[in-house]
Order: sequence, then structure tokens, then C-alpha cells
Amino acid sequence: MDEKTARPGVRLHCAAPLAAGEPVELGEARAHYLRNVMRMRAGDGIGLFNAAHGEWAARVESLSRSSCVAVPVAALRPPAAEDGPWLCFAPIKRARLDAMVEKATELGASRLVPVFTRHTAMERVNVERLAAIATEAAEQCERLSVPEISAPATLEGLLAGWPAGRVLVVADESGGGVPIASALAGASGPLAILAGPEGGFARAELDALARAVFVRRVGLGPRILRADTAAIAALAILQALAGDGTIAPRATWRDRDGIIHGA
Amino acid sequence: MDEKTARPGVRLHCAAPLAAGEPVELGEARAHYLRNVMRMRAGDGIGLFNAAHGEWAARVESLSRSSCVAVPVAALRPPAAEDGPWLCFAPIKRARLDAMVEKATELGASRLVPVFTRHTAMERVNVERLAAIATEAAEQCERLSVPEISAPATLEGLLAGWPAGRVLVVADESGGGVPIASALAGASGPLAILAGPEGGFARAELDALARAVFVRRVGLGPRILRADTAAIAALAILQALAGDGTIAPRATWRDRDGIIHGA
Repeated sequence: MDEKTARPGVRLHCAAPLAAGEPVELGEARAHYLRNVMRMRAGDGIGLFNAAHGEWAARVESLSRSSCVAVPVAALRPPAAEDGPWLCFAPIKRARLDAMVEKATELGASRLVPVFTRHTAMERVNVERLAAIATEAAEQCERLSVPEISAPATLEGLLAGWPAGRVLVVADESGGGVPIASALAGASGPLAILAGPEGGFARAELDALARAVFVRRVGLGPRILRADTAAIAALAILQALAGDGTIAPRATWRDRDGIIHGA
Repeated sequence: MDEKTARPGVRLHCAAPLAAGEPVELGEARAHYLRNVMRMRAGDGIGLFNAAHGEWAARVESLSRSSCVAVPVAALRPPAAEDGPWLCFAPIKRARLDAMVEKATELGASRLVPVFTRHTAMERVNVERLAAIATEAAEQCERLSVPEISAPATLEGLLAGWPAGRVLVVADESGGGVPIASALAGASGPLAILAGPEGGFARAELDALARAVFVRRVGLGPRILRADTAAIAALAILQALAGDGTIAPRATWRDRDGIIHGA
């Protein structure tokens, strides 16, 4: 690998257009991170990416307490749509919710939809905090895109406005679902997962789900999983069986031993 | 459901032999939990279980600050071996490790093996804390068994003492693995997962893994997953494709709406 295409150690999502030689302002939070956490200075190399403009090797042009200007130098990776499954979830307690968002991002979810159900214990969800967690996870896991966090919906609203053609996979702890591997065998087209709250779905909600033609109720085995575990497990299985699980990591990268992987 | 077979709201693992009418001492920690957290008193019903004696509806006979004696009343579920996959893992930071142990328990791992590799950042692992987390997760998720936490091993030691007939599935981020769904198609017999540390495996370790005839290197898709995410994802996929993912939840239970599930 020559210097231009070496994978930078720091990889930041940047919503602005990325083009060779065009400076971008990364803002105060990123300036703080690069200066005080990563101990970087002007001249150092970083990676910048977004889904519309791909990934770039960039150089830090200026770095102060409140501003960081970087300039894309060389394209590392072309733009690509990353249209992974959606994860619709009843908000759960903060630590579990944050970890679920991180892992859903790593597992390739393209949209995260907070859904308030009858037994959802949380009354609010901080969409901005979840977006920050998703961005950081996307930076760490080699995505080009950051999953979009939708405005919170009610379950009724979610089902009423459900888009044609997308199958909604619902983990059914009551034992009424088809084993997930069977349910997904041969699945094609867009998918979504619905993970209920710790208290489960109410009877009226289960009835509404059973009536929806786009819903597939699945089983995740004999144990009763926590809401966050069920969401992560279903997403991992879905990607392995009907998603991008057959694609190998694309990035060429150098591990701590200096071994180049994925070449 | 009559009173005898109603699913108790509290379900505790108890290593002692369980038999109808034979009192068991649950110890100070459980006494504290039942008294101060669950606000129980003598006469209340709880569930007791272990893999060797099955699950029982039991009654609290006495409950003080330092002691709780309970008496099994009626068998709810026969003993059963729960011989799920093993999870071998490089110890990671505490919060992530704790969550990984919880989720591995929910996903049916029968044994958790801490493995120190060259790039493992942690120098110690608290086996007792992990055992407590696994016990609590087993109580929540309807298992009969608690996964055994093995004494920590080195990767060399693990491979040198590997039992005949058990396949070790290793998530390979370098892109050299077979997609996990293909690798597991038609798999039978005992399985284990090895999840490396955040820093990845060293070159010599990758070579040793490649030489081991019982190792299958698998890919988990195009993104680079955190160590804990990779472990949970691999375990979920493995159970769905080659484990007990086809078995529906067995317990008859009543949700908040009073609906009886799994009957």
C-alpha cells in the first residue's frame, strides 16, 4: 500500500460533499476528539466518508479548539447505497438501548425506528443521542452510511404507514412463530425486524400484528430472550441468511502485526 | 393453570438436590433479594431449578436477613441436559464482557471459556462475577442450566487440549472465512465459537488456527464487528442454523394482559 491508499487510523463520518482538494469543516466536537483524544495535529491523515461521496483519505489542514478543516486527498472507496434491514424497537433502558443501537449499526441496519407500544416502560427516546452512537459505530465498523434514526412512532402508526413490499419479522416469544431460519429461507426483498419491549406485546397488539399481511412471526429458540438480545440475534441471523452475510470485509487493513488483510 | 403449576414470578437457580418436600437453604444473597428486592415473605411461591433435578414450584418456608429456606412442592419440568455450544472469548472491558456473558447465556451457551491471546488487553478475568451474571441470565431466560465458566486458558493451551469431535468456529475479519451460513449448512455435532480480542489475532495465532483441523474460519459479513458483537452474532446464527433454534419456548406463562402463552 502506498501512502495515499493506506487506511487511515481515524475514520470520521462527514455529511458534507467530499471531493479531492475541497476543504471541509468538521466542527468543534470533532476538533476536540482529534486534538485531545487522538492527539492529532495539522498535517496528519484521517479518513472521511459518507454514503453519497464514498470514502476518502484526507489531510488535516488546520486544527484548533473549535475548528478542524480537512481536505480529501484520494478516493479510497466509491459511494454505495447500504440498504440493510430496518430495526423497529420499543425503547428500553438507556445502557441496553445504547448497546442495541451500536450493535444494530455494526450489523448493517439502515434505519432504526423507535416504536412505543402499550407495555413500553420508557416514555421518551433521545434521538440525537442514538444518532451519535450510530455515527460512532459506523465509523468503527467500516460502513459508508450511518443508519437513519426515525422519529418515534406508535405501533399503530408504524403498521398503518408500513411501506409496500417490506417484510416485518417479529420475534414471537409465545411460541407461535416459525423458526427464524425456516421463515427466512429463500427470503428476498427488503426486511425489517420488530423487537418488542421487555413486557412483551399486549393482546390487541399481537392481534394487529397477526392481521398484517407483511408480518412474519418467527421463533428464536426455546429461551426467553431480553428485548435487546432478541433484536441483535434476529438482525445477525437475518443478515447471515437473507442479507449481506456472504460478503467478506472489503477494506484492506493492517493489523497490529503489520499484516495486510483483505488484499 | 392450577396453583401448583402456575409459573412463579421469581425463578432461582439452586445447585442443591431438589425433591418434593425436601427443604433447601438458599443462602444470604438470595434471602436479601427475596426480602428486600422482591418484597417476599414466608408462604410466597418461587421457582427453583437446576439441570440435574429440573424445575420446581416451591414455597418460601422461612425468610430472614441471612437465610431463606424453601420447599419444592411440585415438579414443573423434568431434568434435561442443555448441551449448547461453547463460547471461547478473549476477555474485553468489563461492561462489554458482562453483556456478552449475559447474552451468551440467553443464547444457550453451555460453557464460557476465557482465552488470553497476544493482543488481549485485559490481564485478568473475574470468573466469580461472570458466574453470577450467567446465573442471573439463566434465571431470566428459562434455562435449566447455568453455563460453566472455565478457568482461563491461553490460546495455545486451548488448542492443545481441544476435545475430539467439537468444531471450533472462528470469526475471521481478514476476509479469509467462509460465509457463516454456508459453513454451518448441515453441521451436526458439538460446536464452539472463538471470539478474538478487539486487537484481533496475531499472525502466529492465525497460523495456529489455520493448522488446527477442528477449526472452521467463517465470515460475518462486510463490516468489522466489535469482539462482543461478533461473539453474540455468531452464537445467534449458530443456534438458528445448527442448534436449538427450531425449538419453540416451552414454558407456559402468563403475560401482563393475563394471556397464557405456549399452552
